[in-house]
Amino acid sequence: MTIQSFFPPQRTLMGPGPSDVSPRVLSALARPTVGHLDPTFVGMMDEVKSLLQYAFQTKNQYTMAISAPGSAGMEACFVNLITPEDTVVVCVNGVFGMRMIENVKRIGANVVIVEGTWGRAVEPQALESALQGNPQANFVAFVHAETSTGVLSDAKTLCQIAKQHDCLTIVDAVTSLGGVELRVDDWQIDAIYSGSQKCLSCVPGLSPISFSDKAAEIIKNRDSAVQSWFLDQSLVMGYWSGEGKRSYHHTAPVNSLYALHESLVLLQNEGLENAWARHQLMHEKLASGLSELGLTFIVPEDERLPQLNAVHIPDGVDDGKVRAFLLDEYNLEIGAGLGDFAGKAWRIGLMGYAARNENIALCLSALKKALKTAQQYA
Amino acid sequence: MTIQSFFPPQRTLMGPGPSDVSPRVLSALARPTVGHLDPTFVGMMDEVKSLLQYAFQTKNQYTMAISAPGSAGMEACFVNLITPEDTVVVCVNGVFGMRMIENVKRIGANVVIVEGTWGRAVEPQALESALQGNPQANFVAFVHAETSTGVLSDAKTLCQIAKQHDCLTIVDAVTSLGGVELRVDDWQIDAIYSGSQKCLSCVPGLSPISFSDKAAEIIKNRDSAVQSWFLDQSLVMGYWSGEGKRSYHHTAPVNSLYALHESLVLLQNEGLENAWARHQLMHEKLASGLSELGLTFIVPEDERLPQLNAVHIPDGVDDGKVRAFLLDEYNLEIGAGLGDFAGKAWRIGLMGYAARNENIALCLSALKKALKTAQQYA
Repeated sequence: MTIQSFFPPQRTLMGPGPSDVSPRVLSALARPTVGHLDPTFVGMMDEVKSLLQYAFQTKNQYTMAISAPGSAGMEACFVNLITPEDTVVVCVNGVFGMRMIENVKRIGANVVIVEGTWGRAVEPQALESALQGNPQANFVAFVHAETSTGVLSDAKTLCQIAKQHDCLTIVDAVTSLGGVELRVDDWQIDAIYSGSQKCLSCVPGLSPISFSDKAAEIIKNRDSAVQSWFLDQSLVMGYWSGEGKRSYHHTAPVNSLYALHESLVLLQNEGLENAWARHQLMHEKLASGLSELGLTFIVPEDERLPQLNAVHIPDGVDDGKVRAFLLDEYNLEIGAGLGDFAGKAWRIGLMGYAARNENIALCLSALKKALKTAQQYA
Repeated sequence: MTIQSFFPPQRTLMGPGPSDVSPRVLSALARPTVGHLDPTFVGMMDEVKSLLQYAFQTKNQYTMAISAPGSAGMEACFVNLITPEDTVVVCVNGVFGMRMIENVKRIGANVVIVEGTWGRAVEPQALESALQGNPQANFVAFVHAETSTGVLSDAKTLCQIAKQHDCLTIVDAVTSLGGVELRVDDWQIDAIYSGSQKCLSCVPGLSPISFSDKAAEIIKNRDSAVQSWFLDQSLVMGYWSGEGKRSYHHTAPVNSLYALHESLVLLQNEGLENAWARHQLMHEKLASGLSELGLTFIVPEDERLPQLNAVHIPDGVDDGKVRAFLLDEYNLEIGAGLGDFAGKAWRIGLMGYAARNENIALCLSALKKALKTAQQYA
């Protein structure tokens, strides 16, 4: 049996990520590969660092991209900072909060769970109570934008509470970076990770990450080795750091970093605040159209993520058939529900390059047709 | 400050990797991104699995690509298979054997080191003695092709010895896969990992991996959770496995997998044995030219890796200046020495798409000029 070259269809990606990738980013991706210690490449890495500092709104020196997807970025934050003696308060209101707990457990540290409601923001008062009841806690972790439910939590307030209790903060910004307001320094976030394939509209596979000076100190002064060699930031920094000679740790994903660089140049050129405003504007247009189709949102209006719209699947409508219809007839991908919402919700993404008028028009027309077809055969 | 798009120079990559990437692979890389659960993408992943089974010469069901570089592939093999109760015999003859030790230590398992000579193959007799002296050992790990020194070890014999002592085998094939003979099933290799950016001539960032049925059983029946969530193969298999519905673990690096698929199609079309023979033939041509320039090999002839040629830097010749000259004047990258060989050796790669007549001609001409220039100013 001979296998042939693979030519993917041209989809419109309006699920929970990967999002539509700009042609400029795909073009950058395919530029000639250079060595990972090539002086031109090292210069480009310095630019990626500056551009990420802008996107995260931070002056953190320790800002870079992990050579693996967002889940590895999450793990990098936890395994580098947390040791078995620590107590981590984890706020959970969806799949990715649960994944944080899994990370803490595999380190063997103590975990205090602030159990929230799926489809609702983390309640600041619940975090405050948990911290009052657990004075030994020294870390607070939560998800800024829950990709599983389309919920935005108030990261600024949650970090304020954590700081009042002398805790370091670990924040999941996989879906928030570039899509909604996020200010790492102003909000006192100590460790943050994101993904390349959401509102940055880069290809999947990289995880932007940033550590505050305080977090960086903890990493430098650890008594025990980090349990992951690949994610050990004390070693990775020897390669990404601008100080003196770069030391080899692993071979950087050269071409993916070209793509990340280009996506961050696009964000810089648009302006961060403009990108946030565009996501909000497009969300309002989409939301209005979805209402006209009779679809209702899972999340209350003031807790919604503009870039990820979770709606109830109407009674009697077959989830799988509708999504297959959109994909087969319109090359349009929307997301299924995850965890508690599997089979009950759709997640319609408007991330980065996908947050455009033409995508909204396509999505609303195609969805209208799909719902009509589904009701005919119900 | 406004940062501009990055346009890398067109280099010829003859270092230890990344190697020259075929234009066909770069073109595949830039194809439109689809969702990581898209049916067309799932079909492509099945093909990647088949093509990797061919490249590894294995029927192992548990064959896939880790969504991160070779170092993560190494870590995936160790953390999934080894627990603190295990004893691992690690054969060391270069940087990557040392990295294996680091992995075993971070798991908290017992390690027995078979100390070899840098620049020489692992001695089968030394492994035999270590196993006789440590009957509790249950794993043997070694590097098939040491990228740090350009040495090929006799994987077949080392695995035979391991099996005589009822040990499972873990093999680093980062630089060997696609470049020299490698037969996972015939040689009884239980866990093996490689890298995309060596003799497969794909972009860096992925790690092909394969586990024997026996190794897969160990992973399935573990009592304790794997210390890495991201690399936990019992979870990753839910996404890569062909059985029934794919369950989400992390977002696969879609475009990089297009590129890996294309590089494996190229290998399939050339034929594995033909690719091995081409590397050997090109090595002989290069070696003959290097001898004419008065350069001597570090590794004895029958232990040399055809795809990575380590030569002594002549006395009085400035390592950095020569490599900078090659890069600046000829856009040619060759590799520096690593570890014990830093400043003392060059590593000239002939990997995958780089193993071509035109590259050898360029390298020999440019190196001749560089050496002449270096001697003029010495």
